Amino acid sequence: MYPETLKNLIECYKKHPGIGEKSAERMALFCLDADDDMLQLFADSLTNLKKNVKRCKNCNNLTENEICDICADDSRDKSVICVVEDIKNVFQFERIGSYHGLYHVLDGLISPLDNINPEDINISTLIDRIRKENIHEVIIAVRPSIEGETTALYISKALEDLDVVVSKIAHGVPMGADMDYVDNLTLELALEERKNINN
Amino acid sequence: MYPETLKNLIECYKKHPGIGEKSAERMALFCLDADDDMLQLFADSLTNLKKNVKRCKNCNNLTENEICDICADDSRDKSVICVVEDIKNVFQFERIGSYHGLYHVLDGLISPLDNINPEDINISTLIDRIRKENIHEVIIAVRPSIEGETTALYISKALEDLDVVVSKIAHGVPMGADMDYVDNLTLELALEERKNINN
Repeated sequence: MYPETLKNLIECYKKHPGIGEKSAERMALFCLDADDDMLQLFADSLTNLKKNVKRCKNCNNLTENEICDICADDSRDKSVICVVEDIKNVFQFERIGSYHGLYHVLDGLISPLDNINPEDINISTLIDRIRKENIHEVIIAVRPSIEGETTALYISKALEDLDVVVSKIAHGVPMGADMDYVDNLTLELALEERKNINN
Repeated sequence: MYPETLKNLIECYKKHPGIGEKSAERMALFCLDADDDMLQLFADSLTNLKKNVKRCKNCNNLTENEICDICADDSRDKSVICVVEDIKNVFQFERIGSYHGLYHVLDGLISPLDNINPEDINISTLIDRIRKENIHEVIIAVRPSIEGETTALYISKALEDLDVVVSKIAHGVPMGADMDYVDNLTLELALEERKNINN
Protein backbone atom coordinates (compact mmCIF):
# COMPACT_ATOMS: atom_id res chain seq x y z
CA MET A 1 0.00 0.00 0.00
CA TYR A 2 2.70 2.50 1.05
CA PRO A 3 5.80 2.86 -1.15
CA GLU A 4 8.58 0.41 -0.11
CA THR A 5 10.89 2.91 1.65
CA LEU A 6 8.03 4.42 3.64
CA LYS A 7 6.74 0.96 4.51
CA ASN A 8 10.16 -0.04 5.87
CA LEU A 9 10.33 3.16 7.89
CA ILE A 10 6.88 2.51 9.40
CA GLU A 11 7.94 -1.05 10.31
CA CYS A 12 11.04 0.29 12.08
CA TYR A 13 8.99 2.81 14.07
CA LYS A 14 6.54 0.07 15.02
CA LYS A 15 9.36 -1.88 16.69
CA HIS A 16 9.84 0.98 19.21
CA PRO A 17 8.31 0.55 22.66
CA GLY A 18 4.81 2.02 22.93
CA ILE A 19 4.49 2.81 19.21
CA GLY A 20 1.49 1.31 17.40
CA GLU A 21 0.46 1.27 13.75
CA LYS A 22 -1.07 4.78 13.73
CA SER A 23 1.76 6.51 15.58
CA ALA A 24 4.34 4.77 13.39
CA GLU A 25 2.54 6.02 10.27
CA ARG A 26 2.33 9.53 11.65
CA MET A 27 6.03 9.56 12.54
CA ALA A 28 7.10 8.21 9.14
CA LEU A 29 4.94 10.76 7.31
CA PHE A 30 6.43 13.49 9.52
CA CYS A 31 9.87 12.48 8.21
CA LEU A 32 8.65 12.98 4.65
CA ASP A 33 8.12 16.68 5.47
CA ALA A 34 11.03 17.06 7.90
CA ASP A 35 14.02 19.19 6.94
CA ASP A 36 16.98 17.46 5.31
CA ASP A 37 19.54 18.34 8.00
CA MET A 38 17.44 16.79 10.71
CA LEU A 39 16.89 13.60 8.67
CA GLN A 40 20.62 13.35 7.98
CA LEU A 41 21.49 13.81 11.66
CA PHE A 42 18.84 11.25 12.58
CA ALA A 43 20.18 8.64 10.11
CA ASP A 44 23.81 9.31 11.08
CA SER A 45 23.06 9.04 14.79
CA LEU A 46 21.38 5.69 14.22
CA THR A 47 24.25 4.42 12.08
CA ASN A 48 26.94 5.50 14.56
CA LEU A 49 25.05 4.81 17.77
CA LYS A 50 26.44 1.39 18.66
CA LYS A 51 29.89 2.23 17.29
CA ASN A 52 30.19 5.43 19.35
CA VAL A 53 28.31 4.69 22.55
CA LYS A 54 30.06 2.22 24.85
CA ARG A 55 30.05 1.42 28.56
CA CYS A 56 32.37 3.13 31.03
CA LYS A 57 35.15 0.71 32.07
CA ASN A 58 34.76 1.93 35.60
CA CYS A 59 31.06 2.31 36.42
CA ASN A 60 29.30 0.77 33.39
CA ASN A 61 27.53 4.06 32.54
CA LEU A 62 27.16 5.15 28.89
CA THR A 63 30.06 7.03 27.32
CA GLU A 64 31.80 7.73 24.03
CA ASN A 65 35.22 7.34 25.71
CA GLU A 66 36.91 4.70 27.88
CA ILE A 67 35.75 6.39 31.07
CA CYS A 68 32.42 8.26 31.36
CA ASP A 69 32.14 12.01 31.98
CA ILE A 70 31.07 11.46 35.58
CA CYS A 71 34.01 9.20 36.48
CA ALA A 72 36.37 11.56 34.65
CA ASP A 73 35.06 14.67 36.43
CA ASP A 74 37.57 15.73 39.10
CA SER A 75 35.04 17.92 40.87
CA ARG A 76 32.90 14.93 41.88
CA ASP A 77 33.08 13.29 45.28
CA LYS A 78 35.02 10.08 44.57
CA SER A 79 34.29 8.59 47.99
CA VAL A 80 30.59 7.84 47.38
CA ILE A 81 29.08 5.37 44.89
CA CYS A 82 25.38 5.31 44.09
CA VAL A 83 24.39 1.82 42.90
CA VAL A 84 21.57 1.75 40.31
CA GLU A 85 19.85 -0.95 38.32
CA ASP A 86 19.85 0.70 34.92
CA ILE A 87 21.67 3.40 32.92
CA LYS A 88 18.42 5.39 32.83
CA ASN A 89 18.61 5.81 36.61
CA VAL A 90 21.98 7.60 36.33
CA PHE A 91 20.35 10.29 34.20
CA GLN A 92 17.42 10.50 36.62
CA PHE A 93 19.77 11.27 39.50
CA GLU A 94 21.86 13.63 37.38
CA ARG A 95 18.74 15.54 36.45
CA ILE A 96 17.96 16.42 40.07
CA GLY A 97 21.50 17.76 40.34
CA SER A 98 21.97 17.34 44.10
CA TYR A 99 24.10 14.19 44.03
CA HIS A 100 27.78 14.75 43.36
CA GLY A 101 29.32 11.32 43.89
CA LEU A 102 29.97 8.45 41.46
CA TYR A 103 27.66 5.73 40.14
CA HIS A 104 27.71 2.04 39.49
CA VAL A 105 25.27 0.53 36.99
CA LEU A 106 24.33 -3.08 37.81
CA ASP A 107 22.42 -3.80 34.58
CA GLY A 108 19.80 -5.79 36.44
CA LEU A 109 18.88 -7.05 39.89
CA ILE A 110 19.40 -10.45 41.51
CA SER A 111 16.31 -12.59 40.87
CA PRO A 112 16.70 -16.31 41.59
CA LEU A 113 13.20 -16.97 40.22
CA ASP A 114 14.26 -15.57 36.82
CA ASN A 115 17.62 -17.31 37.11
CA ILE A 116 19.50 -14.02 37.50
CA ASN A 117 22.30 -14.66 39.98
CA PRO A 118 24.91 -12.23 41.38
CA GLU A 119 27.40 -13.27 38.68
CA ASP A 120 24.90 -12.33 35.94
CA ILE A 121 24.85 -8.68 36.92
CA ASN A 122 27.62 -6.17 37.42
CA ILE A 123 28.27 -6.81 41.13
CA SER A 124 31.82 -8.21 41.21
CA THR A 125 33.18 -5.06 39.54
CA LEU A 126 31.41 -3.03 42.25
CA ILE A 127 33.08 -5.05 45.03
CA ASP A 128 36.43 -4.63 43.22
CA ARG A 129 35.96 -0.87 43.00
CA ILE A 130 35.19 -0.60 46.70
CA ARG A 131 38.25 -2.68 47.56
CA LYS A 132 40.56 -0.65 45.34
CA GLU A 133 39.17 2.88 45.38
CA ASN A 134 38.89 4.90 48.55
CA ILE A 135 35.11 4.58 49.00
CA HIS A 136 33.41 5.66 52.23
CA GLU A 137 29.77 5.11 51.37
CA VAL A 138 27.76 2.95 49.00
CA ILE A 139 24.20 4.20 48.46
CA ILE A 140 21.93 1.49 47.11
CA ALA A 141 19.28 3.16 44.95
CA VAL A 142 17.30 0.29 43.45
CA ARG A 143 13.55 -0.13 43.33
CA PRO A 144 11.81 -1.43 46.45
CA SER A 145 10.94 -4.98 45.38
CA ILE A 146 11.97 -8.52 46.32
CA GLU A 147 14.72 -8.32 43.67
CA GLY A 148 15.84 -4.91 44.92
CA GLU A 149 15.95 -6.06 48.56
CA THR A 150 17.81 -9.26 47.62
CA THR A 151 20.39 -7.27 45.67
CA ALA A 152 20.82 -4.73 48.48
CA LEU A 153 21.25 -7.53 51.03
CA TYR A 154 23.78 -9.34 48.85
CA ILE A 155 25.85 -6.20 48.38
CA SER A 156 25.86 -5.29 52.07
CA LYS A 157 26.85 -8.87 53.02
CA ALA A 158 29.66 -8.84 50.44
CA LEU A 159 31.01 -5.61 51.92
CA GLU A 160 30.66 -6.75 55.56
CA ASP A 161 34.34 -6.81 56.42
CA LEU A 162 35.24 -3.63 54.57
CA ASP A 163 35.28 -0.22 56.20
CA VAL A 164 32.42 1.27 54.17
CA VAL A 165 28.96 2.60 55.04
CA VAL A 166 26.20 0.89 53.04
CA SER A 167 22.97 2.90 52.87
CA LYS A 168 19.69 2.59 51.00
CA ILE A 169 17.57 5.44 49.62
CA ALA A 170 14.43 6.16 51.66
CA HIS A 171 11.14 4.57 50.64
CA GLY A 172 7.77 6.02 51.62
CA VAL A 173 4.87 8.15 50.44
CA PRO A 174 6.04 10.19 47.43
CA MET A 175 5.89 14.01 47.50
CA GLY A 176 2.58 15.44 46.33
CA ALA A 177 0.85 12.07 46.46
CA ASP A 178 -2.84 11.89 47.27
CA MET A 179 -3.00 9.75 50.42
CA ASP A 180 -6.13 8.04 49.10
CA TYR A 181 -4.17 6.48 46.28
CA VAL A 182 -1.03 5.33 48.09
CA ASP A 183 -0.80 1.51 48.02
CA ASN A 184 -0.76 -0.61 51.19
CA LEU A 185 2.84 -1.75 50.91
CA THR A 186 4.13 1.81 50.58
CA LEU A 187 1.99 2.92 53.52
CA GLU A 188 3.25 0.03 55.65
CA LEU A 189 6.85 0.91 54.76
CA ALA A 190 6.25 4.60 55.44
CA LEU A 191 4.83 3.77 58.87
CA GLU A 192 7.71 1.45 59.73
CA GLU A 193 10.35 3.95 58.69
CA ARG A 194 8.66 6.91 60.37
CA LYS A 195 10.93 9.69 61.69
CA ASN A 196 10.74 11.53 64.97
CA ILE A 197 10.23 15.22 64.25
CA ASN A 198 9.94 16.82 67.69
CA ASN A 199 13.51 16.35 68.87
CA MET B 1 24.72 14.42 30.27
CA TYR B 2 24.07 11.76 27.63
CA PRO B 3 26.91 10.90 25.20
CA GLU B 4 26.84 13.11 22.08
CA THR B 5 25.43 10.55 19.60
CA LEU B 6 22.67 9.52 21.98
CA LYS B 7 21.88 13.16 22.73
CA ASN B 8 21.50 13.90 19.00
CA LEU B 9 19.26 10.88 18.59
CA ILE B 10 17.04 12.01 21.48
CA GLU B 11 16.80 15.50 19.96
CA CYS B 12 15.70 13.99 16.63
CA TYR B 13 13.02 11.88 18.30
CA LYS B 14 11.80 14.94 20.20
CA LYS B 15 11.07 16.70 16.90
CA HIS B 16 8.48 14.02 16.04
CA PRO B 17 4.82 14.90 16.61
CA GLY B 18 3.55 13.83 20.04
CA ILE B 19 6.97 12.76 21.35
CA GLY B 20 8.14 14.42 24.56
CA GLU B 21 11.42 14.26 26.49
CA LYS B 22 10.70 10.96 28.26
CA SER B 23 9.42 9.10 25.19
CA ALA B 24 12.35 10.37 23.12
CA GLU B 25 14.77 9.05 25.73
CA ARG B 26 13.02 5.71 25.87
CA MET B 27 13.07 5.38 22.07
CA ALA B 28 16.75 6.33 21.80
CA LEU B 29 17.72 3.87 24.54
CA PHE B 30 15.66 1.21 22.76
CA CYS B 31 17.88 1.74 19.69
CA LEU B 32 20.95 1.06 21.81
CA ASP B 33 19.64 -2.48 22.41
CA ALA B 34 17.96 -2.96 19.01
CA ASP B 35 19.42 -5.45 16.55
CA ASP B 36 21.87 -4.18 13.97
CA ASP B 37 19.82 -5.12 10.89
CA MET B 38 16.84 -3.12 12.12
CA LEU B 39 19.03 -0.07 12.90
CA GLN B 40 20.61 -0.29 9.46
CA LEU B 41 17.24 -0.53 7.73
CA PHE B 42 15.97 2.37 9.85
CA ALA B 43 18.95 4.60 8.97
CA ASP B 44 18.83 3.63 5.27
CA SER B 45 15.09 4.29 5.04
CA LEU B 46 15.58 7.75 6.53
CA THR B 47 18.48 8.53 4.20
CA ASN B 48 16.63 7.36 1.09
CA LEU B 49 13.14 8.51 2.05
CA LYS B 50 12.97 11.82 0.20
CA LYS B 51 15.03 10.51 -2.72
CA ASN B 52 12.81 7.47 -3.25
CA VAL B 53 9.35 8.63 -2.33
CA LYS B 54 7.78 11.06 -4.82
CA ARG B 55 4.29 12.12 -5.78
CA CYS B 56 2.28 10.35 -8.50
CA LYS B 57 2.20 12.52 -11.66
CA ASN B 58 -1.43 11.63 -12.06
CA CYS B 59 -3.15 11.73 -8.68
CA ASN B 60 -0.49 13.21 -6.34
CA ASN B 61 -0.43 10.09 -4.14
CA LEU B 62 2.89 8.79 -2.77
CA THR B 63 4.91 6.48 -5.01
CA GLU B 64 8.45 5.36 -5.80
CA ASN B 65 7.68 5.47 -9.55
CA GLU B 66 6.25 8.05 -11.96
CA ILE B 67 2.74 6.74 -11.48
CA CYS B 68 1.47 5.29 -8.17
CA ASP B 69 0.44 1.65 -7.72
CA ILE B 70 -3.24 2.57 -7.64
CA CYS B 71 -3.18 4.56 -10.89
CA ALA B 72 -1.07 1.82 -12.52
CA ASP B 73 -3.42 -0.99 -11.40
CA ASP B 74 -5.50 -2.11 -14.40
CA SER B 75 -8.05 -3.86 -12.21
CA ARG B 76 -9.22 -0.57 -10.66
CA ASP B 77 -12.30 1.27 -11.84
CA LYS B 78 -10.84 4.16 -13.82
CA SER B 79 -14.15 6.00 -14.12
CA VAL B 80 -14.38 7.11 -10.47
CA ILE B 81 -12.13 9.55 -8.62
CA CYS B 82 -12.23 9.96 -4.85
CA VAL B 83 -10.97 13.43 -3.91
CA VAL B 84 -9.14 13.62 -0.56
CA GLU B 85 -7.35 16.35 1.37
CA ASP B 86 -4.24 14.45 2.37
CA ILE B 87 -2.14 11.42 1.35
CA LYS B 88 -3.03 9.78 4.69
CA ASN B 89 -6.69 9.65 3.59
CA VAL B 90 -5.79 7.49 0.59
CA PHE B 91 -4.39 4.83 2.92
CA GLN B 92 -7.44 5.13 5.16
CA PHE B 93 -9.74 4.32 2.25
CA GLU B 94 -7.42 1.59 0.98
CA ARG B 95 -7.46 -0.03 4.40
CA ILE B 96 -11.25 -0.51 4.32
CA GLY B 97 -10.80 -2.23 0.96
CA SER B 98 -14.26 -1.60 -0.46
CA TYR B 99 -13.35 1.28 -2.79
CA HIS B 100 -11.88 0.26 -6.13
CA GLY B 101 -11.67 3.55 -8.03
CA LEU B 102 -8.89 6.13 -8.34
CA TYR B 103 -7.89 8.98 -6.01
CA HIS B 104 -6.91 12.60 -6.23
CA VAL B 105 -4.92 14.18 -3.38
CA LEU B 106 -5.56 17.93 -3.01
CA ASP B 107 -2.85 18.60 -0.40
CA GLY B 108 -5.08 21.01 1.47
CA LEU B 109 -8.50 22.62 1.37
CA ILE B 110 -9.60 26.05 0.16
CA SER B 111 -9.51 28.47 3.10
CA PRO B 112 -9.76 32.17 2.23
CA LEU B 113 -9.20 33.10 5.89
CA ASP B 114 -5.80 31.35 5.84
CA ASN B 115 -5.12 32.71 2.37
CA ILE B 116 -5.36 29.27 0.76
CA ASN B 117 -7.00 29.76 -2.62
CA PRO B 118 -7.97 27.18 -5.26
CA GLU B 119 -4.67 27.73 -7.09
CA ASP B 120 -2.70 26.87 -3.91
CA ILE B 121 -4.03 23.33 -3.78
CA ASN B 122 -4.08 20.56 -6.33
CA ILE B 123 -7.44 21.41 -7.94
CA SER B 124 -6.53 22.42 -11.52
CA THR B 125 -4.91 19.01 -12.12
CA LEU B 126 -8.15 17.40 -10.92
CA ILE B 127 -10.23 19.43 -13.40
CA ASP B 128 -7.74 18.51 -16.13
CA ARG B 129 -7.99 14.81 -15.28
CA ILE B 130 -11.78 14.91 -15.43
CA ARG B 131 -11.67 16.68 -18.78
CA LYS B 132 -9.16 14.25 -20.28
CA GLU B 133 -9.90 10.90 -18.64
CA ASN B 134 -13.21 9.16 -18.99
CA ILE B 135 -14.53 9.96 -15.49
CA HIS B 136 -18.18 9.30 -14.58
CA GLU B 137 -18.16 10.19 -10.91
CA VAL B 138 -16.15 12.40 -8.58
CA ILE B 139 -16.60 11.52 -4.88
CA ILE B 140 -15.60 14.36 -2.60
CA ALA B 141 -14.30 12.83 0.64
CA VAL B 142 -13.05 15.79 2.66
CA ARG B 143 -13.79 16.61 6.28
CA PRO B 144 -17.10 18.34 7.07
CA SER B 145 -15.93 21.88 7.85
CA ILE B 146 -16.23 25.31 6.28
CA GLU B 147 -13.04 24.62 4.32
CA GLY B 148 -14.31 21.22 3.23
CA GLU B 149 -17.66 22.60 2.12
CA THR B 150 -16.01 25.50 0.27
CA THR B 151 -13.69 23.11 -1.54
CA ALA B 152 -16.55 20.75 -2.43
CA LEU B 153 -18.62 23.65 -3.72
CA TYR B 154 -15.74 25.00 -5.80
CA ILE B 155 -15.09 21.61 -7.39
CA SER B 156 -18.75 20.99 -8.22
CA LYS B 157 -19.04 24.50 -9.75
CA ALA B 158 -15.90 23.97 -11.81
CA LEU B 159 -17.32 20.71 -13.18
CA GLU B 160 -20.80 22.16 -13.87
CA ASP B 161 -20.73 21.87 -17.64
CA LEU B 162 -19.05 18.47 -17.76
CA ASP B 163 -20.97 15.22 -17.91
CA VAL B 164 -19.85 13.94 -14.51
CA VAL B 165 -21.65 13.06 -11.27
CA VAL B 166 -20.22 14.92 -8.26
CA SER B 167 -21.03 13.27 -4.92
CA LYS B 168 -19.99 13.80 -1.32
CA ILE B 169 -19.46 11.12 1.34
CA ALA B 170 -22.25 10.92 3.93
CA HIS B 171 -21.88 12.80 7.20
CA GLY B 172 -23.79 11.84 10.34
CA VAL B 173 -23.55 9.98 13.62
CA PRO B 174 -20.57 7.57 13.44
CA MET B 175 -21.08 3.83 13.94
CA GLY B 176 -20.88 2.71 17.57
CA ALA B 177 -21.07 6.28 18.87
CA ASP B 178 -22.70 6.93 22.22
CA MET B 179 -25.58 9.31 21.36
CA ASP B 180 -24.88 11.30 24.56
CA TYR B 181 -21.52 12.39 23.20
CA VAL B 182 -22.43 13.29 19.62
CA ASP B 183 -21.91 17.03 19.06
CA ASN B 184 -24.76 19.36 18.03
CA LEU B 185 -23.51 20.04 14.51
CA THR B 186 -23.23 16.35 13.71
CA LEU B 187 -26.67 15.72 15.14
CA GLU B 188 -28.15 18.59 13.11
CA LEU B 189 -26.51 17.22 9.95
CA ALA B 190 -27.66 13.69 10.72
CA LEU B 191 -31.23 14.93 11.16
CA GLU B 192 -31.15 16.97 7.95
CA GLU B 193 -29.74 14.10 5.90
CA ARG B 194 -32.06 11.45 7.38
CA LYS B 195 -33.08 8.55 5.12
CA ASN B 196 -36.48 6.96 4.68
CA ILE B 197 -36.23 3.32 5.71
CA ASN B 198 -39.75 1.99 5.29
CA ASN B 199 -39.96 2.08 1.51
